[in-house]
Amino acid sequence: MKFQNVKEALEALKALEEKQWALSHAMNMIVYDAATAAPKNSAEGRGKTLGILSAYMYELIAAPENTEMLAYLRAHEAELSEEEKRRVALTEKNCQQISRIPQEEYTEYEMLLNDAQAVWEKAKNENDFPAFAPYLEKIVAFNRKFAGYYNPALPAYDALLNEYEEGMTMAVLDVFFEKLRTAIVPLLEKIRNAKPLNDDFLRRFYPAEKQKQCAEYLMEVLQIDRGYCGLAESEHPFTDNFNNKDVRITTHFYENNLTSALYSVIHEGGHAIYELACDDRYNQTAIAGGVSMGIHESQSRFFENIIGRSEAFIHAVYPKIKEFFPEQLADVTERDFYEAVNRAEPSLIRTEADELTYCLHIMIRYELEKQLIAGELSVSELPEKWNRLYLEYLGVEVPNDTMGCLQDTHWSGGSFGYFPSYALGSAYGAQMLHFMKKDLPNMEEKILSGDLSDIKRWLGEHIHRHASLYQPSVLFEKACGPFDPSYYVEYLTEKFTKLYKL
Amino acid sequence: MKFQNVKEALEALKALEEKQWALSHAMNMIVYDAATAAPKNSAEGRGKTLGILSAYMYELIAAPENTEMLAYLRAHEAELSEEEKRRVALTEKNCQQISRIPQEEYTEYEMLLNDAQAVWEKAKNENDFPAFAPYLEKIVAFNRKFAGYYNPALPAYDALLNEYEEGMTMAVLDVFFEKLRTAIVPLLEKIRNAKPLNDDFLRRFYPAEKQKQCAEYLMEVLQIDRGYCGLAESEHPFTDNFNNKDVRITTHFYENNLTSALYSVIHEGGHAIYELACDDRYNQTAIAGGVSMGIHESQSRFFENIIGRSEAFIHAVYPKIKEFFPEQLADVTERDFYEAVNRAEPSLIRTEADELTYCLHIMIRYELEKQLIAGELSVSELPEKWNRLYLEYLGVEVPNDTMGCLQDTHWSGGSFGYFPSYALGSAYGAQMLHFMKKDLPNMEEKILSGDLSDIKRWLGEHIHRHASLYQPSVLFEKACGPFDPSYYVEYLTEKFTKLYKL
Repeated sequence: MKFQNVKEALEALKALEEKQWALSHAMNMIVYDAATAAPKNSAEGRGKTLGILSAYMYELIAAPENTEMLAYLRAHEAELSEEEKRRVALTEKNCQQISRIPQEEYTEYEMLLNDAQAVWEKAKNENDFPAFAPYLEKIVAFNRKFAGYYNPALPAYDALLNEYEEGMTMAVLDVFFEKLRTAIVPLLEKIRNAKPLNDDFLRRFYPAEKQKQCAEYLMEVLQIDRGYCGLAESEHPFTDNFNNKDVRITTHFYENNLTSALYSVIHEGGHAIYELACDDRYNQTAIAGGVSMGIHESQSRFFENIIGRSEAFIHAVYPKIKEFFPEQLADVTERDFYEAVNRAEPSLIRTEADELTYCLHIMIRYELEKQLIAGELSVSELPEKWNRLYLEYLGVEVPNDTMGCLQDTHWSGGSFGYFPSYALGSAYGAQMLHFMKKDLPNMEEKILSGDLSDIKRWLGEHIHRHASLYQPSVLFEKACGPFDPSYYVEYLTEKFTKLYKL
Repeated sequence: MKFQNVKEALEALKALEEKQWALSHAMNMIVYDAATAAPKNSAEGRGKTLGILSAYMYELIAAPENTEMLAYLRAHEAELSEEEKRRVALTEKNCQQISRIPQEEYTEYEMLLNDAQAVWEKAKNENDFPAFAPYLEKIVAFNRKFAGYYNPALPAYDALLNEYEEGMTMAVLDVFFEKLRTAIVPLLEKIRNAKPLNDDFLRRFYPAEKQKQCAEYLMEVLQIDRGYCGLAESEHPFTDNFNNKDVRITTHFYENNLTSALYSVIHEGGHAIYELACDDRYNQTAIAGGVSMGIHESQSRFFENIIGRSEAFIHAVYPKIKEFFPEQLADVTERDFYEAVNRAEPSLIRTEADELTYCLHIMIRYELEKQLIAGELSVSELPEKWNRLYLEYLGVEVPNDTMGCLQDTHWSGGSFGYFPSYALGSAYGAQMLHFMKKDLPNMEEKILSGDLSDIKRWLGEHIHRHASLYQPSVLFEKACGPFDPSYYVEYLTEKFTKLYKL
């Protein structure tokens, strides 16, 4: 293909981007359906279809014409807008990465992940790590190999981290986690000696039907337009976005746990808010959608913890929550509820962990992933090492793998390098809060009245609408200066010192 | 591409079939999601994706290499098994049809249908036929044009009928419907003069939650393996099959109507049973899946009416149904229930119609479709003509288009020529019953005990397992001789004469 001018080359780029979006849409839809609606023994046919669609995707992205088109656009960069340049850069990154993976491996990996999802669910339900182990071994091996394809100059795990958060390295994370640890450990120590907060009432019987209604109410409070956002059930909560007018969040209702589903709805709601507010102009281009996992988690954890677990928010929503569960919460005051949802206590399950100890769960996964990918830890040793680290960092005994190393969906989904973004996201969010407060002096009052529109507008303006136009660190700095974890440390220290009257 | 031998050409055929299945799977999944789970304003992005996937499908099927491959296999037919010959014939039919439709039209049509689905739902909810009319006009125009592409030698509507039931013509259907009319009209006349059957209690309040549980129970009675078959909710019940290990049925729960959802589950369950029992050997080939709409409807209507509305089946399931609704059905005997679900009375809604008057609903649609496609009726005249025919054949006044010509999903889905297969299916089913009874002398006792396994085995052996290996008429004749509507007329006459004590 020879281009007469930049316009022609941009049309070829657009055609490529649109096909990519369509194939992703189709594949994500099949995977989404598998997690929410598909009959449980239907994995085989789905795997074949995903294999064939992946082959289509591979052919599309690895096509030699792309190289020519991208080279032409690079050579004419002076004629491109900032937006077009970014589209070229992101498409280039994508094409280079994928064309470095041999097609057969790519297809085989997609099919492996499809099978692994079903096997992991079963293994988790039946506490049968050995059933999942051979799949995990293959997934780790693929990731190690892919890391070399992505960037052979980097240590494998750095190359994987870079997939979720551009430029992130073990060196940065080691320092980051160290800073958090030195803040959290003494704080937790003080909390251990303080009067414990009670959350027993959260484990009364809360019928799933009522929880569903309450989840719908929280979607309203978050001002999420249900015309563009679905809410479904799955084993593990997640958010999927097909485009900025079609986002899905999922949750899981436990009838003896009031807050698990509700806070997962707020968490996934934060992801959805981000995707839904990306500017329409980027639809079906490489810029569409949230820019990185870290920024994404900053939004979800901002809504879940910084807003959702604040005194002001509880004040706004608790009366309505009590209406859904008048008997179960008859003896529970607003203050009781606030204290219960913020009770800090070492525990087993990451997704159920409190805001303070959450980072320790992430640190454990970070350590294990580093070692698995480096080949310093074998899959068969994983359960034992997992259990040892939980004892060491959190002081808890892991009774079985279902509540241990089988608890998360990430590894069965091949997402190595993803976990650290949860912790980074929390830290990003705390820094955003600091700058948002400056711009919104009556923020607290608005939250007290249950009105999140100013907050959504601030985030929309500074973060959401830009989609993937800027690199994550550039986007973040434009919104609130260079990343500095001390905002997060200060936020946690202030909140938990006050809460526990330390 | 030059083939060295038949094996090579068969490999090329297999590759084509597999890709076709994968693209269909993806597109069907997106359409299924749209009907069951997608947020209501998400049609736009979905439409774009379907447009691009359709273009992929078009390119795949219209590729010139296919012609060469199919010609090679035709030339070596002597070396092919019966199964391979059928795969060649079906693929050939498929390729010829689609390559006769210009790609742009094909893609435009797929996108039109996607939009039309959302517009129709809204128009139906808001009784706004004019909002839907422009879409329907375009769909009719496309179908008329496509009919010419399919088979320019045939009248347009015959070419469309042929898509759903190979070889079916207006000439055959005119005779068939005439035969039914001459039987049903006098029977209905006698029923009008007989003592009416009471079904008031079916419109008491039946909570959706309980209906769902009851639907699950009926799935068990039908012995449908939920590991391979989903049950979801949609505006209009339907069955979708991605492959013989992944089938979905949907229903719609009305809280003031006990039987609507329950019988739709049995009806769709019949479709599902067929798909689930297709032989694995045909998976991902052109032979996979049910062979025609008529045969498919024979299965769904067999389970819904011939089994589901029989005295023996009611005897088997009514005690359990009563357990789900002890208060609502406190004063209702098994006989009352049997009479209620068989009450014959002219009505407005096809899907709610009784077994006897159902064919009249189909006749009306058949007449209207014939005329729309022939250009003898314009879309703007449709509501008036619809209402006139309902008055003429069924003696009922249509109060609005929601309960009139907007009630069915078929036309918004582009399925012109589909409706007659419902009536044909009923007639096929009655003939199957006749032959099944000969082979299964204790069939009645088994149904009385709620055990449908012999029936499923008979149908599996004679119909289901063969998937699309034989042409529908061949399959049918192998199972129960040449098609003869008198079996159906006799079945209806005997059942309703006895029921109404005529």
